[in-house]
Amino acid sequence: MEIQKPYLLFLGDAQDPLAAKVAQGIKQWHPEYCAGQFRMEDCVADCGLTDMDIEQAKAAGVKTLVIGVANRGGIISDKWIAILVKALEAGFDLAAGLHNKLNDIPELKTLADKLGRQLFDVRFPTQTFPVASGLERTGKRVLMVGTDCSVGKMYTALAVEKEMLAQDMNVSFRATGQTGILISGSGVSVDAVVADFIAGAVETISPANDADHWDVIEGQGSLFHASFSGVTAGLIHGSQADALILCHEPTRTTMRGLPTYSLPDLKTCMDLNLTFARVVNPAVKFVGISVNTSKLTDAEATTLLADIEAEFGLPAVDPFREGMSRIVDELKKI
Amino acid sequence: MEIQKPYLLFLGDAQDPLAAKVAQGIKQWHPEYCAGQFRMEDCVADCGLTDMDIEQAKAAGVKTLVIGVANRGGIISDKWIAILVKALEAGFDLAAGLHNKLNDIPELKTLADKLGRQLFDVRFPTQTFPVASGLERTGKRVLMVGTDCSVGKMYTALAVEKEMLAQDMNVSFRATGQTGILISGSGVSVDAVVADFIAGAVETISPANDADHWDVIEGQGSLFHASFSGVTAGLIHGSQADALILCHEPTRTTMRGLPTYSLPDLKTCMDLNLTFARVVNPAVKFVGISVNTSKLTDAEATTLLADIEAEFGLPAVDPFREGMSRIVDELKKI
Repeated sequence: MEIQKPYLLFLGDAQDPLAAKVAQGIKQWHPEYCAGQFRMEDCVADCGLTDMDIEQAKAAGVKTLVIGVANRGGIISDKWIAILVKALEAGFDLAAGLHNKLNDIPELKTLADKLGRQLFDVRFPTQTFPVASGLERTGKRVLMVGTDCSVGKMYTALAVEKEMLAQDMNVSFRATGQTGILISGSGVSVDAVVADFIAGAVETISPANDADHWDVIEGQGSLFHASFSGVTAGLIHGSQADALILCHEPTRTTMRGLPTYSLPDLKTCMDLNLTFARVVNPAVKFVGISVNTSKLTDAEATTLLADIEAEFGLPAVDPFREGMSRIVDELKKI
Repeated sequence: MEIQKPYLLFLGDAQDPLAAKVAQGIKQWHPEYCAGQFRMEDCVADCGLTDMDIEQAKAAGVKTLVIGVANRGGIISDKWIAILVKALEAGFDLAAGLHNKLNDIPELKTLADKLGRQLFDVRFPTQTFPVASGLERTGKRVLMVGTDCSVGKMYTALAVEKEMLAQDMNVSFRATGQTGILISGSGVSVDAVVADFIAGAVETISPANDADHWDVIEGQGSLFHASFSGVTAGLIHGSQADALILCHEPTRTTMRGLPTYSLPDLKTCMDLNLTFARVVNPAVKFVGISVNTSKLTDAEATTLLADIEAEFGLPAVDPFREGMSRIVDELKKI
């Protein structure tokens, strides 16, 4: 799937700024994709884009209305439908990454079919994928892996892409989850693929490429997460990564959603990921450690990053504080 | 899903005995489930059961016609439909594990709905599963893992169940693939579950149980198989195994379907499986190695099994030649 740009970011009736974090992410990473934002009367979120109604968005050349808000429950709200109908009538496609589907709302589906518009439910893959071949392919790949879910894998991957683009490198971010897909405009929600085809889906979104091209593949889950390790395993074998970046959140005390599980230490985590990744690429190595230090003071963060760097002999950075140039320097050696 | 017994095994128009290997498996492991077999005129396979037509099967109390044959392409043949219609009219459910679905054949689906009969397409899960909780549960579990796909995991698991039943132990075989489901009458084709729910599906089919109860869980794939490792990873974390049995086929030179991959050595394979399984059960251990020596001479098999046994200090057996009593002895120590 390839979502057409530019976007109108729909913030709906967001009752707090965090509810619009998908829109914030799109604006942060790709402001050039965003023509403006649509806020309903009682919306309290604001991405700092030009407010537009549907007519103004049409005049501005918008191609897709992207639902950048999640209400309680993560479903498409009845209150939004009249606006989504107007957007279709204006000639826009719609894109959403919520738990229910645009395609399952008859009013939207019927109208979209009639008008020849597309409804992108990015949480649900619509393609079928082959079984992974495991064959070596040209081009280079770096995959984010983590000590846990939600430790900054998407943020890290986007920061690597941004740094590589700034250095005029040949690079593509490959989204593997719904937020990454909405931010970049394409990708596959790997966790929604049928189990037999996880690795095949990853091979499909990171195909053979120029010898100097980098796929920066967003990770999912963790080999240490009892619920989602199958997704992670398929991602590692499908990506056939040349390089891994370990992502970590140092204040997390138990695995996300698993209160009886503590996090692995970094060494244990890196060892298992490397052993597993070597099955498909014996030359794979870690090039850096990305730490989300947002809950630490500057002094605590500086000390922690220095300690990790000393222990592993690899750049340890917070992509938000420092950016990814030192880790990209390591990637350029491959 | 729970398929009702007894079965009429449908051998169709099998053009060689191997085409009926699913039926052979059911007959081998559960002859008590099999009332008879149905062979079309040109069928060359024979399970050694009483030949029955639909009327005779009805008189014998049959509840389900099981398609125990795979033609070229693994799909339900047009030539079979008239017989399947008769079976539904006689009051039987139908069960199949082929690539296309009984439920997608309008003639069968309409008739089954009208008559209140069930159509089991065991390759395709119909339940939804929760995300795995990772919580410890009562009862004991042994999982088959392999150096590769198709190395005897189902056969080994069924042989363990058989030995435990012979010793009056409290045991259930838990099928994770279509043939195992048809043989045992229940289970889930784990490789067809959505990626996020692999481990959750395995938790569901091996729930909390009596303290002395063993779930013998059929494995799938291999952590070393670049196409299917995600399935295996989810199985290992969902099963929370107390014990693992390594399954191996010693004459295989490359991974099944992956001609550029060689097999891992046994030590490497056991180490990675143990490290991975310890994430959810630190006490997990290997209790034996099951080797399919069917392509070796007796002398070669004896030497190989003795060598493996000496190297790892664990029973190394071919379940077909020796049975599983020595490995069950190890399980009884847990």
